[in-house]
Amino acid sequence: AEPRVAVLTVSDTVASGAGPDRSGPRAVTVVNSSSERLGGARVVVTDVVSDDVEKIKDVLRRWSDVDKMDLILTLGGTGFTPRDVTPEATKELIERETPGLLYVMMQESLKVTPFAMLSRSAAGIRGSTLIINMPGNPNAVGECMEALLPALKHALKQIKGDKREKHPQHV
Amino acid sequence: AEPRVAVLTVSDTVASGAGPDRSGPRAVTVVNSSSERLGGARVVVTDVVSDDVEKIKDVLRRWSDVDKMDLILTLGGTGFTPRDVTPEATKELIERETPGLLYVMMQESLKVTPFAMLSRSAAGIRGSTLIINMPGNPNAVGECMEALLPALKHALKQIKGDKREKHPQHV
Amino acid sequence: AEPRVAVLTVSDTVASGAGPDRSGPRAVTVVNSSSERLGGARVVVTDVVSDDVEKIKDVLRRWSDVDKMDLILTLGGTGFTPRDVTPEATKELIERETPGLLYVMMQESLKVTPFAMLSRSAAGIRGSTLIINMPGNPNAVGECMEALLPALKHALKQIKGDKREKHPQHV
Ligand code: NA
Repeated sequence: AEPRVAVLTVSDTVASGAGPDRSGPRAVTVVNSSSERLGGARVVVTDVVSDDVEKIKDVLRRWSDVDKMDLILTLGGTGFTPRDVTPEATKELIERETPGLLYVMMQESLKVTPFAMLSRSAAGIRGSTLIINMPGNPNAVGECMEALLPALKHALKQIKGDKREKHPQHV
Repeated sequence: AEPRVAVLTVSDTVASGAGPDRSGPRAVTVVNSSSERLGGARVVVTDVVSDDVEKIKDVLRRWSDVDKMDLILTLGGTGFTPRDVTPEATKELIERETPGLLYVMMQESLKVTPFAMLSRSAAGIRGSTLIINMPGNPNAVGECMEALLPALKHALKQIKGDKREKHPQHV
Repeated sequence: AEPRVAVLTVSDTVASGAGPDRSGPRAVTVVNSSSERLGGARVVVTDVVSDDVEKIKDVLRRWSDVDKMDLILTLGGTGFTPRDVTPEATKELIERETPGLLYVMMQESLKVTPFAMLSRSAAGIRGSTLIINMPGNPNAVGECMEALLPALKHALKQIKGDKREKHPQHV
């Protein structure tokens, strides 16, 4: 089956109605335009929450455990301000960390701007769901996805336990 | 206000008086010579402790929670010898990890020497204080600071909650 | 004394007898052919276990605490499939993480294939033993070892507490 993707915008500003969600729609566009390279992946749900650890965890837990999403992208809350807690919420739910995804997102983002070093993104697997934090800046979503695309389709198949997919060349 | 910086030399040798502190003075020089790029940052306190987890934690806790330093640099105790425990002490106190800072320090240090892979440095935020482990080698302090300088001033502003500083371009 | 190395193949397939161990022999060859650059290191024991956290931990604990190995290389179980749990077993036993070793293995592996981003390898020190996860693909073992060789001999000396080895240039 085609991977089902969920997109969560984490932002006090957007959640309170004080500003528009620019990252969410951008992420939907990025996933849909990469659908073929992602095995037919499509965004099936989006939501917005404030920068609150418990609220973020509630959505991630529901999307993973109940709705069985294949991939969850969070947008925002990865910086250094006191309200940036998306990585902390994510790490509490992740069962198996995926540091290589963070490595390639950092590597590619640093080619665009040194401020990428301020991303505190986490990523990992919960059950059969891959959860990846991305920065809130709309351009960053595209850059991070570009870094992941060479192996993301394969990652989603591996998580489902496809043994044929286990050692394509290297891992 | 200008960022207030604290420098902690972690070394049994120096703490016992068996050798001079070469890293501490170098770090002070590096910070002061970068003061303008760091928003006027200046070193306001330095100290030396032995390679002891509890002693390291005591100083880091006081400088963060009581003295409200903006930035703490630790020097030394990041290697593989049995007494190298600065990262362990630091990780016990950090509330929010900052892995991108470690990434750029590693990336730049490896350009100088492959022995940089032996750094086990940790970094992260406690309250409104950024704590960064650096290796004890005096030259390494300059190299690590060079890696951080493009975004460190911005990092220190973000930690204070400056929303205007949240998304300069990317994060 | 020359470093004593242990090699653990982690694979349901191999442990059940359903397939040959291709990674283990390759790792032995890689270590032996690098022996000189590793201070005379030689593989003194190998074993195979299934992808089971407790079984992996049992071997790692025995090789570290009882047999006092200098270096343990695990092979396999680092990917995204549900049975890939080698990093989780390893992280439960590690006392001091060594993130720089992961950095250079990721950096070098990504030069060979983007699928390297799917490695979830962990690495760290337990007592006086260095434990490093490597992917199960036989070629990956050579690539990862190549990345580590410039500093691995030094790492093994540092772990033993050799102070002369503490600051060769940088760390
Ligand atoms: Na890199």
